[in-house]
Amino acid sequence: MEDRLRKYLSSIKPLDQEILEKAQERLNSLTKPKGSLGRLEEFGKLFVGIRGDLEERVRKKVVFVYAGDHGVVEEGVSAFPKEVTKQMVYTFLRGGAGINVVARHAGCHVVVVDIGVDGEIEAEGLVKRKIKNGTNNISKGPAMAREDAIKSIMVGIELVEEYVERGYNLFATGDMGIGNTTPSSAIYAVITGKDVDEVTGKGTGISDEALKKKREVVRKAIEVNRPNPKDPIDVLSKVGGFEIGGIAGTIIGCAYNRMPVVVDGIISTAGALIAVSLNPTIKDYIFCAHRSAAFGHQAALEWLGKEPMLDLKMRLGEGTGAAIGMWLIELGEKILHEMETFKEAEVTEGKEVFQPGS
Amino acid sequence: MEDRLRKYLSSIKPLDQEILEKAQERLNSLTKPKGSLGRLEEFGKLFVGIRGDLEERVRKKVVFVYAGDHGVVEEGVSAFPKEVTKQMVYTFLRGGAGINVVARHAGCHVVVVDIGVDGEIEAEGLVKRKIKNGTNNISKGPAMAREDAIKSIMVGIELVEEYVERGYNLFATGDMGIGNTTPSSAIYAVITGKDVDEVTGKGTGISDEALKKKREVVRKAIEVNRPNPKDPIDVLSKVGGFEIGGIAGTIIGCAYNRMPVVVDGIISTAGALIAVSLNPTIKDYIFCAHRSAAFGHQAALEWLGKEPMLDLKMRLGEGTGAAIGMWLIELGEKILHEMETFKEAEVTEGKEVFQPGS
Repeated sequence: MEDRLRKYLSSIKPLDQEILEKAQERLNSLTKPKGSLGRLEEFGKLFVGIRGDLEERVRKKVVFVYAGDHGVVEEGVSAFPKEVTKQMVYTFLRGGAGINVVARHAGCHVVVVDIGVDGEIEAEGLVKRKIKNGTNNISKGPAMAREDAIKSIMVGIELVEEYVERGYNLFATGDMGIGNTTPSSAIYAVITGKDVDEVTGKGTGISDEALKKKREVVRKAIEVNRPNPKDPIDVLSKVGGFEIGGIAGTIIGCAYNRMPVVVDGIISTAGALIAVSLNPTIKDYIFCAHRSAAFGHQAALEWLGKEPMLDLKMRLGEGTGAAIGMWLIELGEKILHEMETFKEAEVTEGKEVFQPGS
Repeated sequence: MEDRLRKYLSSIKPLDQEILEKAQERLNSLTKPKGSLGRLEEFGKLFVGIRGDLEERVRKKVVFVYAGDHGVVEEGVSAFPKEVTKQMVYTFLRGGAGINVVARHAGCHVVVVDIGVDGEIEAEGLVKRKIKNGTNNISKGPAMAREDAIKSIMVGIELVEEYVERGYNLFATGDMGIGNTTPSSAIYAVITGKDVDEVTGKGTGISDEALKKKREVVRKAIEVNRPNPKDPIDVLSKVGGFEIGGIAGTIIGCAYNRMPVVVDGIISTAGALIAVSLNPTIKDYIFCAHRSAAFGHQAALEWLGKEPMLDLKMRLGEGTGAAIGMWLIELGEKILHEMETFKEAEVTEGKEVFQPGS
């Protein structure tokens, strides 16, 4: 199975520079001072550059919400008990959670994937791709077998392929998993090389005392498992989670299919670190939706070299930031394609010599 | 007419604290870690607090785009010639400008108001409220008569009243007027007390040379006219513009009618400075859409004490930032009203002790 994954990874191509240049030319010809729609212009340009087609429109948008459980919760690293993962999956499927509200408003489809929830879930609409009933406690040993880490990535790739077939061309990642900021922090520390204290925060909201404990747990997970930062699958299997693997796979699948992918907060960005470590070209296909209010996210954004789209002090996960991000990309695409040019509008062009920031 | 304006100004009430508290309680009961939807929660809460009704939903959204010309353009303060104001009004009415694209995507109505364009415009859909064919050159004398400044404010108030009648309950301001960053900078300098150089930038994109000239023009406008910062109508009439008056009036009309109003960039914020100087309570009804990439905006945001909703490096005006802002407020409102509570969802509550930023 690792061979199959390697095939995907080795087939990822860089963005289409010619399309990017043509998009910039078009943006400069529209009835507005050059560059005055700021990052919306950048989003529209990147969308067509990624798709390799100047005329591509956003058709259908989807956010994959991967749910998984974490053995490490028994160490007391979360403010919420483990059963909440399962309860929230039911809430997603009923349409009553944060991501459902945001997705309805942003016009995107929510796909909920059980990739590793502890316990059976019987509910209509659930995509069942369970690998195991949660990971093992990473402070005592590896989260999962290497083979299962690869399986979790393949789940993400295959879902993208399925939704590409169905006509979707804008993707986003989300997560649900009580305790999953703990493996995310471990991945951040291993891959960015930052100290555990710099990338481990309070998650959903634990006490100062519990944060101290959580940092010890992350440190112990790294000491016990000795994940190899040069081998991202080793990192994922030793200190990761199934939903993080699914997210990494979604990102890889998008890059392979030349689809833009919007990455949400702390947990999704952990998936991005795994994906980009496997192949740095993948970075060009990623939009970082927002700067999470959760401690540590900034270190991962810096490692990726990405300026997030939004800073709304959000820290919910579920793909909530990413769904808003897709809406903004769609807006950028519409600006590129629907605004009139100076010529079309018969508007006199200015003599601008604008320097950004002046 | 000034008496009528004073009546509106003296009838503006503070926000409903009880509703704000109830909204916070509801937000805290929703299936998410407390505060984890960040500023979206703030937007939803403020929306119902302003409307004075915990159950109020966003019904219809409108952005008023006020267009006016500026005599000061003859001093060479803009990269674009004056006729572009009129050309862009035609573009707005055809639906081909930036604001049209953004408004369609955000689901809001665009109302284009000729409040002071130089020349006649014959086109369907235009709201004709012309006061004069542009202002006088402020570097030589007052922009307009005091009576006309009040008239321009009343245009804004009356339009809000009309659209409240029609069932709109979320408003935004936008502008079109070649040269209008020059009066805006003058208003910023007079009202915030900052030096002209700190609040005067390159607008649509002039050269370093032209910027030097523009700053001299702004300085001269203030020296020649000596606007009284304690009398905002004096400031508007001496160094303002008709569209800035219309925007100030829209903001006043919204506060009077307990309607949220989203203020766009440089020019709209100049209108906000006038409105808030007339009655500081008005500030509570204002959302500042975004931090403009145009130089000087930050000083006005600080004077207002407002953290903008977005920072997308935009500097187009037309209400483009404000239309996105309305979409985000609507999202906040939906979060408040459509998410399930822990009780409804039968999700176990956590033991959170979250401190923001930790």
